[in-house]
Amino acid sequence: MSNPLRNETLAGMKVLVTVLPKPSVLDPQGAAAAEAIRHHGLEKIGRVRIGKMIEIELPEAADESLLHEIARDLLSNPVIEDYELKVVNA
Amino acid sequence: MSNPLRNETLAGMKVLVTVLPKPSVLDPQGAAAAEAIRHHGLEKIGRVRIGKMIEIELPEAADESLLHEIARDLLSNPVIEDYELKVVNA
Repeated sequence: MSNPLRNETLAGMKVLVTVLPKPSVLDPQGAAAAEAIRHHGLEKIGRVRIGKMIEIELPEAADESLLHEIARDLLSNPVIEDYELKVVNA
Repeated sequence: MSNPLRNETLAGMKVLVTVLPKPSVLDPQGAAAAEAIRHHGLEKIGRVRIGKMIEIELPEAADESLLHEIARDLLSNPVIEDYELKVVNA
């Protein structure tokens, strides 16, 4: 296994999964937000991307490889989205 | 002003705005995700909340108080959502 942390167990943690459209994928919602931000007075902005943030509370230990499986297969669409998984102390 | 950083200018930055439903607000989407995660094999989970993640690229300096105004008034609904704004180096 390439990542030795994958099978670590985690207790009393919070898992933050962020899901953003891949850079190559059109994001019309982000483009609309960029336009609205420009009209709000911030003229010089670059690209805006809009995705999801999922916060999962874990009362006890969980296998990190299972968490990655859930983020990849359940919470994101790997064809058009990238996910990032972060574990923080609750 | 309570926060002395509010009027700092920022150049070549990325702004990450996370928007989550307030803890007191019902989040049916989060409850549905929690159920799906349970069925996927992670039996012991606590609350799941689903919100938005907005990534804004800034090519040049921007007033941080204007960014907070945009996050509060444009990107979130302050009645039912809390936002968090983080500035990171692009």
